[in-house]
Amino acid sequence: MSISEITQQLLAAKQSKGLSFADLEQIIHRDEVWIAALFYRQASASEEEAQKLTQALGLGKEIAEKLTEYPVKGNSSIVPTDPLIYRFYEIMQVYGMPIKEVIQEKFGDGIMSAIDFTLDIEKEEDPKGDRVKVIMSGKFLPYKKW
Amino acid sequence: MSISEITQQLLAAKQSKGLSFADLEQIIHRDEVWIAALFYRQASASEEEAQKLTQALGLGKEIAEKLTEYPVKGNSSIVPTDPLIYRFYEIMQVYGMPIKEVIQEKFGDGIMSAIDFTLDIEKEEDPKGDRVKVIMSGKFLPYKKW
Amino acid sequence: MSISEITQQLLAAKQSKGLSFADLEQIIHRDEVWIAALFYRQASASEEEAQKLTQALGLGKEIAEKLTEYPVKGNSSIVPTDPLIYRFYEIMQVYGMPIKEVIQEKFGDGIMSAIDFTLDIEKEEDPKGDRVKVIMSGKFLPYKKW
Amino acid sequence: MSISEITQQLLAAKQSKGLSFADLEQIIHRDEVWIAALFYRQASASEEEAQKLTQALGLGKEIAEKLTEYPVKGNSSIVPTDPLIYRFYEIMQVYGMPIKEVIQEKFGDGIMSAIDFTLDIEKEEDPKGDRVKVIMSGKFLPYKKW
Amino acid sequence: MSISEITQQLLAAKQSKGLSFADLEQIIHRDEVWIAALFYRQASASEEEAQKLTQALGLGKEIAEKLTEYPVKGNSSIVPTDPLIYRFYEIMQVYGMPIKEVIQEKFGDGIMSAIDFTLDIEKEEDPKGDRVKVIMSGKFLPYKKW
Amino acid sequence: MSISEITQQLLAAKQSKGLSFADLEQIIHRDEVWIAALFYRQASASEEEAQKLTQALGLGKEIAEKLTEYPVKGNSSIVPTDPLIYRFYEIMQVYGMPIKEVIQEKFGDGIMSAIDFTLDIEKEEDPKGDRVKVIMSGKFLPYKKW
Amino acid sequence: MSISEITQQLLAAKQSKGLSFADLEQIIHRDEVWIAALFYRQASASEEEAQKLTQALGLGKEIAEKLTEYPVKGNSSIVPTDPLIYRFYEIMQVYGMPIKEVIQEKFGDGIMSAIDFTLDIEKEEDPKGDRVKVIMSGKFLPYKKW
Amino acid sequence: MSISEITQQLLAAKQSKGLSFADLEQIIHRDEVWIAALFYRQASASEEEAQKLTQALGLGKEIAEKLTEYPVKGNSSIVPTDPLIYRFYEIMQVYGMPIKEVIQEKFGDGIMSAIDFTLDIEKEEDPKGDRVKVIMSGKFLPYKKW
Amino acid sequence: MSISEITQQLLAAKQSKGLSFADLEQIIHRDEVWIAALFYRQASASEEEAQKLTQALGLGKEIAEKLTEYPVKGNSSIVPTDPLIYRFYEIMQVYGMPIKEVIQEKFGDGIMSAIDFTLDIEKEEDPKGDRVKVIMSGKFLPYKKW
Amino acid sequence: MSISEITQQLLAAKQSKGLSFADLEQIIHRDEVWIAALFYRQASASEEEAQKLTQALGLGKEIAEKLTEYPVKGNSSIVPTDPLIYRFYEIMQVYGMPIKEVIQEKFGDGIMSAIDFTLDIEKEEDPKGDRVKVIMSGKFLPYKKW
Repeated sequence: MSISEITQQLLAAKQSKGLSFADLEQIIHRDEVWIAALFYRQASASEEEAQKLTQALGLGKEIAEKLTEYPVKGNSSIVPTDPLIYRFYEIMQVYGMPIKEVIQEKFGDGIMSAIDFTLDIEKEEDPKGDRVKVIMSGKFLPYKKW
Repeated sequence: MSISEITQQLLAAKQSKGLSFADLEQIIHRDEVWIAALFYRQASASEEEAQKLTQALGLGKEIAEKLTEYPVKGNSSIVPTDPLIYRFYEIMQVYGMPIKEVIQEKFGDGIMSAIDFTLDIEKEEDPKGDRVKVIMSGKFLPYKKW
Repeated sequence: MSISEITQQLLAAKQSKGLSFADLEQIIHRDEVWIAALFYRQASASEEEAQKLTQALGLGKEIAEKLTEYPVKGNSSIVPTDPLIYRFYEIMQVYGMPIKEVIQEKFGDGIMSAIDFTLDIEKEEDPKGDRVKVIMSGKFLPYKKW
Repeated sequence: MSISEITQQLLAAKQSKGLSFADLEQIIHRDEVWIAALFYRQASASEEEAQKLTQALGLGKEIAEKLTEYPVKGNSSIVPTDPLIYRFYEIMQVYGMPIKEVIQEKFGDGIMSAIDFTLDIEKEEDPKGDRVKVIMSGKFLPYKKW
Repeated sequence: MSISEITQQLLAAKQSKGLSFADLEQIIHRDEVWIAALFYRQASASEEEAQKLTQALGLGKEIAEKLTEYPVKGNSSIVPTDPLIYRFYEIMQVYGMPIKEVIQEKFGDGIMSAIDFTLDIEKEEDPKGDRVKVIMSGKFLPYKKW
Repeated sequence: MSISEITQQLLAAKQSKGLSFADLEQIIHRDEVWIAALFYRQASASEEEAQKLTQALGLGKEIAEKLTEYPVKGNSSIVPTDPLIYRFYEIMQVYGMPIKEVIQEKFGDGIMSAIDFTLDIEKEEDPKGDRVKVIMSGKFLPYKKW
Repeated sequence: MSISEITQQLLAAKQSKGLSFADLEQIIHRDEVWIAALFYRQASASEEEAQKLTQALGLGKEIAEKLTEYPVKGNSSIVPTDPLIYRFYEIMQVYGMPIKEVIQEKFGDGIMSAIDFTLDIEKEEDPKGDRVKVIMSGKFLPYKKW
Repeated sequence: MSISEITQQLLAAKQSKGLSFADLEQIIHRDEVWIAALFYRQASASEEEAQKLTQALGLGKEIAEKLTEYPVKGNSSIVPTDPLIYRFYEIMQVYGMPIKEVIQEKFGDGIMSAIDFTLDIEKEEDPKGDRVKVIMSGKFLPYKKW
Repeated sequence: MSISEITQQLLAAKQSKGLSFADLEQIIHRDEVWIAALFYRQASASEEEAQKLTQALGLGKEIAEKLTEYPVKGNSSIVPTDPLIYRFYEIMQVYGMPIKEVIQEKFGDGIMSAIDFTLDIEKEEDPKGDRVKVIMSGKFLPYKKW
Repeated sequence: MSISEITQQLLAAKQSKGLSFADLEQIIHRDEVWIAALFYRQASASEEEAQKLTQALGLGKEIAEKLTEYPVKGNSSIVPTDPLIYRFYEIMQVYGMPIKEVIQEKFGDGIMSAIDFTLDIEKEEDPKGDRVKVIMSGKFLPYKKW
């Protein structure tokens, strides 16, 4: 998977400034995951957000403008080969139907929105080995009948 | 996607007994999602768990034995067509790389385990529409160098 | 594409009763397309809807119960081969990006929901050849920032 | 999905002129969706249309000439990953067979043309959330017997 | 590729009656290719056509009724493996773009309909080896602008 | 599908000279479809043919030499997305097996050659809409037994 | 890959009679590979060949009749997984273009027929390990120009 | 399928020197097919072979060095579209299982090596049309038991 | 992935006899992995091995005979979904090229045979968590030049 | 499969310095396979490792920095075509399920980690032909229940 030029520029600027996504969170008041999504052109910024971000990164107006565009989303191959990303594919393969059963039991026929949606990542320290905590929250959308 | 016979029998028994996955959670002291995974033969039970579960569902020994077998896992088509399950595929497509960036920033080069892993589903009541909360917790596994 | 047994039973009953989907619309007060979706197990009925429908079709309780279950949705091959269905795939291929541009211009960054969604089919009589009119209406869902 | 150079030039010119597709609709008297399709080289313009359009956008003759060429159409991956476009794929997956049933009941054995075809997008204001309305109109083509 | 039961019954009846598709052409006054398409459930017959055909083949009412249903069409794998059918795939691969150029030069931007369409097969006797002649005739459909 | 540079040069020269494929047919005494196939590097010319053609188009020796090379053939994606070309894929999907039946009935077990093969395109004027006539003629090749 | 019932019956009969394909070669005077192709329904027999073969195998008329039918050919998955068959796929992957170069140098633009084609398998004894010799002979078919 | 730069240089040099693969066979005492495989970077040369070959072709040291590298092999799409190469895919599709049966009958459970392997191409002159003879010879490798 | 009937019978017999693959290793003097491969019909037994094995498992002659047949091998989907098996696919994805480099550096241009091949699995006890040790040993096969 | 520029630079430097991966093993005290993985950007180095390695290879700081980045992993096509790499795919196809059975019998329900994982390659000299020995060692990860 090739990484687009703008993503590379953003990542390089972030590295040379010695900033983490958590630092950027403090600057533009958006979650670090959402900012990473913006870097990978999976989200679009407001003009203000784009300005603050590019200023912090020492990047120009052209980048700021680009970040406000609505991107064509989705950036993986059909089955991802990177092990970190594949594990999320595997979770869908193995736990997809069980998740469907439990959501439907709790909410009825419908889905969890991936648009009215947030995703947080936390580090759980654990003596047996730290754990990655991923918290997704999506609005339940019941099927409309007509 | 065809649903295997044993899964159908388990679901039918659960429905005729009027039990929810949450009820079963009380009986065998395992999370409702894990139990749903067991129903879909994506997990294996201990003999004791299998016995308690089949007793509660009014099912026989043969089913109990089957539930202790180690299954061949994964039960979706390559790209799932069911909208509820597809949304998790979409999350991987759209947020896969951003998640990778943030996990690596917090933990280093490695992955979130999908084996030493738990997944919970909660209902967040919200006046603007209830939300589905999915909490994943997987052990971070750093790449071993050798 | 094999058609599931329950769908075949519903279609056979409808044919032997000489009922059209439009007739069924009068009986259960749901749109004919939604009823056809129910026949193909792409939607789930309330108990009342299921009862009215199976009564009208002269079918038993077992079918009624099945119709209230939440189905695993999606019933086409990856690229459909049936010419009528393929044309909708072609519309997505040819007009997908233009539609995206226009929706985004009118609404911002987001999607048209396929869940909070209705679809109507009308016949437009035309001396040069009748026309099929398909009207889709889906709630606009703006991307949540977090 | 990479966007071709001519499309990028057209979109950039439109943005710098501060024109919407709706504005262009006023200038060349074609629907905004059709114009967006022209931008993405999914449709071909007459010389007059091409001239008017490029003049409005401040672009040269070479672009005008290109717009009159008959393009190789179709510009998505097999299963689109962009969420906005995917929803139309999902509609085909979920409602394809029901749509087929209802069209056939109203018209007989045949298809809705995707060539003698128009597509409009409207914004329906709604207090519960605005809705996207997509109206397709395609000539019904009955299967010829021979 | 498995051949459906009804197709097998029709082919078996045709063989036991010693009838060719050309003979059936004389009986129902439809082209032999169209009749073969009907056998493979790629076309639908009128009640009269179905009756004549099943009578000639010594088959019952149930088959006749089935033949009037509007089928789900398309019956090959994505890339066909049978050499006779593959050659038509190869013709599309090798001559697809050249055909597009020539049709567009003669007709403008549009397509040859595969619905308002006929296909004949003739045997051309030739001392250097007989030739298969396939004549397709489809209505030209110009792209509608809107 | 990207169009190779040599094809683009040939098409551009043809356009600037105001020549149709039918005009070129007069010049090199080969069918217009074959010439279009040569343009798309799906066929190879003799030196004489290449010379005449490039002369007519005002192109140099290098192009002429290239046209005599034996190309790697096949230039579409697995399932073509361009509607004009897709219709030929659809014809193979829908009428593949019927064509196989009729050819085998007339000729025995074997295939229509796609190598000892010609393809003509004619315009049939028709008050109800002009028709595209495609005439394929391929040598029948019976399966050799050994 | 599932093996069809008729193939299984033929192979079982061959085994119970203790006959090799080489023995059958003596009986019906066709090459052992062709006979194996007939077993796998990739070739069709004359009535006389079918009779001799089924007699030798102690099988009935029904099988004989089936063997004279013209089969739908091709019986592997897209990329074969069986190692013996895969090696032929690998040969095509690795040596496909080199073979093309050498055939074209010797014969011009065209192909080796896979229809007017024979294939023999011989055992070459060799002290360093016996060798499999596969001899293919296919008529060269030059591309027809038209 | 794009042809790599080094292959293009080798083919161009060969053409400008007016050498056939058969001529090169005389010079480096390797089979013409193997040399063509070397051109397409599917085989690696010894330093001596590389030197002789590049000398004959008037090419420099850099090319010679490249030819001694061990290449990443395999250079076709999954299902090849070029008709000449496809026929070998078709042979595997149609005759794969029969070949497996006959090899196993002659040799036992194992495979024909595609590594300890040679492939020759000969022209068989024939008044009914010349024939391409392809002779493969691969060491039989019996499955090791352990 | 469905498990074939004979595999199910073998596994059921093994379980009811309370035998491990390691126990069977003692009885037929073949490695446990090879025996598991025999169970899954990926290897073929001698008559003596088949007899000993079926005797130990209390199974009949029919099974013994089946085990001596040479199977069609390969029993996974293209990309395996079972997490245990997928990890081996991932190892090939991530370490395939590095392995190629190191093998070529040590041995030259060639491959590790998967036929003249053994595979052992050992349990390495480790206080930080036991480890799976997989030892593959395959004959190096240098590319033959010809 | 294209080899990335950094990989090409590393391989070229290694060759011009006349260093083997085994030599590099002596310099940075990591296994030769791991170093090859680092070359192919499938692993990330510490700053110290990167410095030592680039120093030994005569490469600059920019390369050293790149080697400390956490790469997007996986670098093969879905089914690899290179014969050496394919054999590992084949091992997974043929021995995947047997390996699963034996690992589960020895360890219970879980997987061999591909992250807490090492892989060594040794040359076993053997008069009948040297053998490639591949030793994998991965931590066993039991499925967590929750």
